[in-house]
Amino acid sequence: MSDTDSSRIKRVVLAYSGGLDTSVIAKWLQVTYNCEVVTFTADLGQGEEIEPARAKARNMGIPDEHIYIEDVREEFVRDFVFPMFRANARYEGDYLLGTSIARPLISKRLIEIARETGADAIAHGATGKGNDQVRFELSAYALDPDIKVIAPWREWDLGSRSALIDWAEKHQIQVPRDKRGESPFSTDANLLHTSSEGKVLEDPWEETPDYVYSRTVNPEDAPDAPEYITVDFDKGDGVALNGEAMSPATLLTALNELGRKHGIGRLDLVENRFVGMKSRGMYETPGGTIYAVAHRGIEQITLDRGAAHLKDELMPKYAELIYNGFWFSPEREMLQAAIDLSQQKVNGTVRLKLYKGGVHLVGRKSADSLYSERHVTFEDDAGAYDQKDAEGFIKLNALRLRLLAKRDM
Amino acid sequence: MSDTDSSRIKRVVLAYSGGLDTSVIAKWLQVTYNCEVVTFTADLGQGEEIEPARAKARNMGIPDEHIYIEDVREEFVRDFVFPMFRANARYEGDYLLGTSIARPLISKRLIEIARETGADAIAHGATGKGNDQVRFELSAYALDPDIKVIAPWREWDLGSRSALIDWAEKHQIQVPRDKRGESPFSTDANLLHTSSEGKVLEDPWEETPDYVYSRTVNPEDAPDAPEYITVDFDKGDGVALNGEAMSPATLLTALNELGRKHGIGRLDLVENRFVGMKSRGMYETPGGTIYAVAHRGIEQITLDRGAAHLKDELMPKYAELIYNGFWFSPEREMLQAAIDLSQQKVNGTVRLKLYKGGVHLVGRKSADSLYSERHVTFEDDAGAYDQKDAEGFIKLNALRLRLLAKRDM
Amino acid sequence: MSDTDSSRIKRVVLAYSGGLDTSVIAKWLQVTYNCEVVTFTADLGQGEEIEPARAKARNMGIPDEHIYIEDVREEFVRDFVFPMFRANARYEGDYLLGTSIARPLISKRLIEIARETGADAIAHGATGKGNDQVRFELSAYALDPDIKVIAPWREWDLGSRSALIDWAEKHQIQVPRDKRGESPFSTDANLLHTSSEGKVLEDPWEETPDYVYSRTVNPEDAPDAPEYITVDFDKGDGVALNGEAMSPATLLTALNELGRKHGIGRLDLVENRFVGMKSRGMYETPGGTIYAVAHRGIEQITLDRGAAHLKDELMPKYAELIYNGFWFSPEREMLQAAIDLSQQKVNGTVRLKLYKGGVHLVGRKSADSLYSERHVTFEDDAGAYDQKDAEGFIKLNALRLRLLAKRDM
Amino acid sequence: MSDTDSSRIKRVVLAYSGGLDTSVIAKWLQVTYNCEVVTFTADLGQGEEIEPARAKARNMGIPDEHIYIEDVREEFVRDFVFPMFRANARYEGDYLLGTSIARPLISKRLIEIARETGADAIAHGATGKGNDQVRFELSAYALDPDIKVIAPWREWDLGSRSALIDWAEKHQIQVPRDKRGESPFSTDANLLHTSSEGKVLEDPWEETPDYVYSRTVNPEDAPDAPEYITVDFDKGDGVALNGEAMSPATLLTALNELGRKHGIGRLDLVENRFVGMKSRGMYETPGGTIYAVAHRGIEQITLDRGAAHLKDELMPKYAELIYNGFWFSPEREMLQAAIDLSQQKVNGTVRLKLYKGGVHLVGRKSADSLYSERHVTFEDDAGAYDQKDAEGFIKLNALRLRLLAKRDM
Repeated sequence: MSDTDSSRIKRVVLAYSGGLDTSVIAKWLQVTYNCEVVTFTADLGQGEEIEPARAKARNMGIPDEHIYIEDVREEFVRDFVFPMFRANARYEGDYLLGTSIARPLISKRLIEIARETGADAIAHGATGKGNDQVRFELSAYALDPDIKVIAPWREWDLGSRSALIDWAEKHQIQVPRDKRGESPFSTDANLLHTSSEGKVLEDPWEETPDYVYSRTVNPEDAPDAPEYITVDFDKGDGVALNGEAMSPATLLTALNELGRKHGIGRLDLVENRFVGMKSRGMYETPGGTIYAVAHRGIEQITLDRGAAHLKDELMPKYAELIYNGFWFSPEREMLQAAIDLSQQKVNGTVRLKLYKGGVHLVGRKSADSLYSERHVTFEDDAGAYDQKDAEGFIKLNALRLRLLAKRDM
Repeated sequence: MSDTDSSRIKRVVLAYSGGLDTSVIAKWLQVTYNCEVVTFTADLGQGEEIEPARAKARNMGIPDEHIYIEDVREEFVRDFVFPMFRANARYEGDYLLGTSIARPLISKRLIEIARETGADAIAHGATGKGNDQVRFELSAYALDPDIKVIAPWREWDLGSRSALIDWAEKHQIQVPRDKRGESPFSTDANLLHTSSEGKVLEDPWEETPDYVYSRTVNPEDAPDAPEYITVDFDKGDGVALNGEAMSPATLLTALNELGRKHGIGRLDLVENRFVGMKSRGMYETPGGTIYAVAHRGIEQITLDRGAAHLKDELMPKYAELIYNGFWFSPEREMLQAAIDLSQQKVNGTVRLKLYKGGVHLVGRKSADSLYSERHVTFEDDAGAYDQKDAEGFIKLNALRLRLLAKRDM
Repeated sequence: MSDTDSSRIKRVVLAYSGGLDTSVIAKWLQVTYNCEVVTFTADLGQGEEIEPARAKARNMGIPDEHIYIEDVREEFVRDFVFPMFRANARYEGDYLLGTSIARPLISKRLIEIARETGADAIAHGATGKGNDQVRFELSAYALDPDIKVIAPWREWDLGSRSALIDWAEKHQIQVPRDKRGESPFSTDANLLHTSSEGKVLEDPWEETPDYVYSRTVNPEDAPDAPEYITVDFDKGDGVALNGEAMSPATLLTALNELGRKHGIGRLDLVENRFVGMKSRGMYETPGGTIYAVAHRGIEQITLDRGAAHLKDELMPKYAELIYNGFWFSPEREMLQAAIDLSQQKVNGTVRLKLYKGGVHLVGRKSADSLYSERHVTFEDDAGAYDQKDAEGFIKLNALRLRLLAKRDM
Repeated sequence: MSDTDSSRIKRVVLAYSGGLDTSVIAKWLQVTYNCEVVTFTADLGQGEEIEPARAKARNMGIPDEHIYIEDVREEFVRDFVFPMFRANARYEGDYLLGTSIARPLISKRLIEIARETGADAIAHGATGKGNDQVRFELSAYALDPDIKVIAPWREWDLGSRSALIDWAEKHQIQVPRDKRGESPFSTDANLLHTSSEGKVLEDPWEETPDYVYSRTVNPEDAPDAPEYITVDFDKGDGVALNGEAMSPATLLTALNELGRKHGIGRLDLVENRFVGMKSRGMYETPGGTIYAVAHRGIEQITLDRGAAHLKDELMPKYAELIYNGFWFSPEREMLQAAIDLSQQKVNGTVRLKLYKGGVHLVGRKSADSLYSERHVTFEDDAGAYDQKDAEGFIKLNALRLRLLAKRDM
């Protein structure tokens, strides 16, 4: 929002964590825009209680019917995380997109709540340097083209920690003791991952200090014995762990526990932000890292080569779209349609070995397997495959190369 | 070759390992085609002596000038392995293409030797079910469109082990005691990797037995303490380990030792062969696995986003071309030209932690770094980045989505 | 089929045109395989009567219940041609795939008839050098993995015209007088196009003689006045011409008439066959050429940029799949799912000018238009677009390029 | 530039046409930024005299050494247009990128002149709604990361025609009589094309009035007899017309004359701008349209299938990069490296028929042709191609589809 528009805001829905920063934002919106604030606090599996946000919102004079507190974990995993993992999506080769995939869900609820409450704007606490502002806002605009978006970090002049705290105290917002100093890094968390960046992580040559990790043990402290697990898939989505059926969020939670225990899913990455700069981040995706290996494993025996290779070719673009905030875009939906079609027979069981930070695929089986021992065997194949066919296959594949060689000799 | 052509073969260059199978082939070529056999035995780093092949070839009456025994390790790593790793190539998400990348080099030498010796054909010991026949032959035809290719496994009727051994003994070829029985799996090795498939590996649900591995210790038996190393890159190629300059093959050999010690690079894969079936293989790529992580690491800070994302999009096709045997094709060379151009400033040092089967990137630095702490910092950036720019950036990226939403509302 | 299998054929379904070549094949199958022949003759819009095929089949002793004669024009356009045009498919930049798209439909019916009649094989009249054998057979195998395929042109020794005619006369097959000599070129036709190749067309430097064309007047003989038409689209498919609703085949037939009259859709092409050689062909696609321009025209205003660009990127692969015979493949179906999703709002009317071989798009309108005169106007846009947003948009798009320039200066 | 920076500008290089708009800009820069103005006027083949710009610049007090007037036509065609046509680039299926490709050249000279004259900024006359501002500025930033860019149309309040004229008169800038009224459309021209948009073209359902066209006759007024021409290529670039060797710009100029005469190269398009809106434009690309057909024609016989298909797959992205202004980007240069490698043997002659708005390829020949009449012929091919190879080729291509069908039956 440019300042000239501010007079027009009447009611704004804020993505509210209950923490200091978004509490300041809530108050700042009231003060600056002289508007009503509706708060939305979601349990995405970030591992913190969300109920305390209610009292804090009330303290700022927000009426109960404008305080939304919701557990969206199942929706998050079922409708966002799992569809994304069907694509084997990794941004820049490695990043499992844990932050990126949560933003569209939050924006979707912000817009829905804006409609319910008659709000004309939404607000978020993402800074002007990062990707999250883009993800929040592109999703919001895609779902409501007339919505107004307020991004306080791009507007106010509370750029330093001390300015923020001064402002908070001036406006009767409680500042917890541990928030007074500068945090050595900043963090985002949900059921899929925790990311950390900034401060102590800003030099990409320095190893990430161990205290930055919160979701996994150090692999060196993990059990000395490997643990074997199985994951079952149905239509490309995980449905059971060690034979026990589980809902999406329950399965991911259980895999997170296994990942934590075995030190799985730590990633130290320098990535390219959509806004044009490189940043260095630390990610912990314990369950997601296990799940990703499992999903590729079941695809190995159930997916046709043509489908598998097409998926691999489309994946970088698909991952980039999610990273850049284009979840709600026609092209992401088109790719999803192609990917989902490929998953109809991605059913079966994979067996994994977890050990000291590693996830090792050791077995896969499926009633829908395309693997044919009869074709591949070195033993007598009972005529399943005529080796003489290979000569013609090679000859015709070689023909253009031979014509080329004749010309260029 | 179809039988009707056999009368025309006068001299054939055979890819000769010195082992039982290719010894039988050498003799079979002499007997069946009544032609001279030239042998080519290459040290690709497979870990076996190649000199014994000389005596065996002599025993079959092959004159010394027709016995080629060569150490091609440096050429292999410099001209094939390193260019491929510049692309971060992985077939079907995981396979580092260790076998695929060795075949074109062998074919190139077979064709060169055919020219030197006036031979009109080449021969190889690959079966009619696999990818290697395709790779050998496409490369050969691309380099010499008039060459004839003999693939005995597609022609003869020595399909069973006992038939092969009977034939060998009937033709005075020594059969080592340990080759009499059926091998529990078959193997291919070179400096980049060892692959194993068949027999005990044919059930993709069964875990690969530990005795199949030959290049790495079991991660559980690896040292309990992590080891830190650095790898230096120049123009996208590795040039030093722990600060010590090394030639390509020397560097890969040293990384292999580190990988072996820490149990790094084991891969259990069901893959899609070019000839149309799925196969299950076990790969050990100790040094290559370390090198791949290191290369991605140095690219993280030295490669522009546009270049990096283009590389990621092109990679699946590039990997598929190598897997399918199209190393010597215009399209692989076009992709290589694009990739190589991107590597001009891929210089610097990465730091890696090796531990119990895992390779963890922990640091990277470069005089050609594009990472700008000044831009990314949460602290005061002295005007390097104007957060207000983000609003316009988002607004224009959102415009088409808003127009779409207006229509579809 | 290799000869060793021939004894096993009991009943074969033949793609039967009623012409000399497929009549010889029918007889040859009876004689060589000593099997029953079921004939399938389809009206794909090739412009020849199909009913005469009945008497010819009867003459060869085929019982009436084994003579299938069907008009499949609506199915052809609705289920094959239109879905393909949704993708704007052009092989190698120009070819509208008129032959390629007909083959899967024929194979589909051959397989269905084989099931109905208990046949164990199918047969077709395509040669061993072309693409059509591949298209017929890949489709057949994809629909029935156990079907046997007989391709007489790859098996028999009737390679020359005179040998074929001798064989025909020896076996009491009537040889029309005009089929005795060598045809100056060979032809394939259906409702979408006519293709010609061979003989007089084999020198790609020689202009195609005018007598080769059969579906269009020479543009020089076309009317001297342009003709304007409109085509209406619904969900990406044509539904009306000049405001008159028409079924798919009726619409294409009417466009063919317009194309014929105005000399539209002639194409002289050297293309790359899947079997590895280049061939020179002449194509006439009168209605299809008009339809292709119309479809792109309606997409211009109804398709979002993200969707449109994704379609353009996927198109070459999609066209290649159809050209190579992979209509019935998971990857073509995945691409189709993506493409079809994009067409949900591709509704509206385009206006075209037809003149002397050219199709010129001159107008398009739609209730689902995404074109916003309010945004694009040079006039006052009432705040629809804030030009100042462009600065931020450019600045952030430029950021990575500036960091790069700073490094490389 | 935001206003707060304006005090820092000392000298600015302006892309100066000599027309009213850029004359106002020159004066406005002097008045607003109190800075020196350096003018750069380029002959890109727009068809207007550039020398008159000198007197106009002098009138504004610009010293002679700060008035740059240059003929860059050869550089434009040789280093920008021809490389782009090697890729067969078309944006959104049709647009030959005539405006897009001129911008990077202008920016390159602006930056070079800024260095020569010690200027700290550049300025251009593109508006805030279009693509050209992006192209100018991305190129400038890529070549000089510290350059400042002034885009007056985004800064000033001279949004209406009358305001602009008032300002001009107030500042003693001569306003030609024909510039007083509103122009019915706006135009950009260079040797490759003329584009028109705005006003009378804003309704995409209305046919473009004939008076908008300036570079081509109406096809209906073109000669009634076709004209045949030949174009020779060397390494993918045109080098001769009708056998007469010509420089790049001379060749394009001659093709423009032919195109004008025969009414070739008119395009009515609704396209998607990078800034997020759709716009309707009219393009005339007479010579370029002929050249594009010629280039595809020579590639048909000289380019291998693998190279050709890779080019087709990469083209949409390449075209998008140029359209969006990323000529000077690593990814465009990577794609160019791949494309250029493919053109090494794109040599030979094509023959074209020009008639009433159409360009028809009728013949192509080359000493580097890959077309093999021996392989493709229906006649006896002397063993060049063994039709039996096709069976094996098809069988192995079908194998995965059969395994799939077996599973899914």
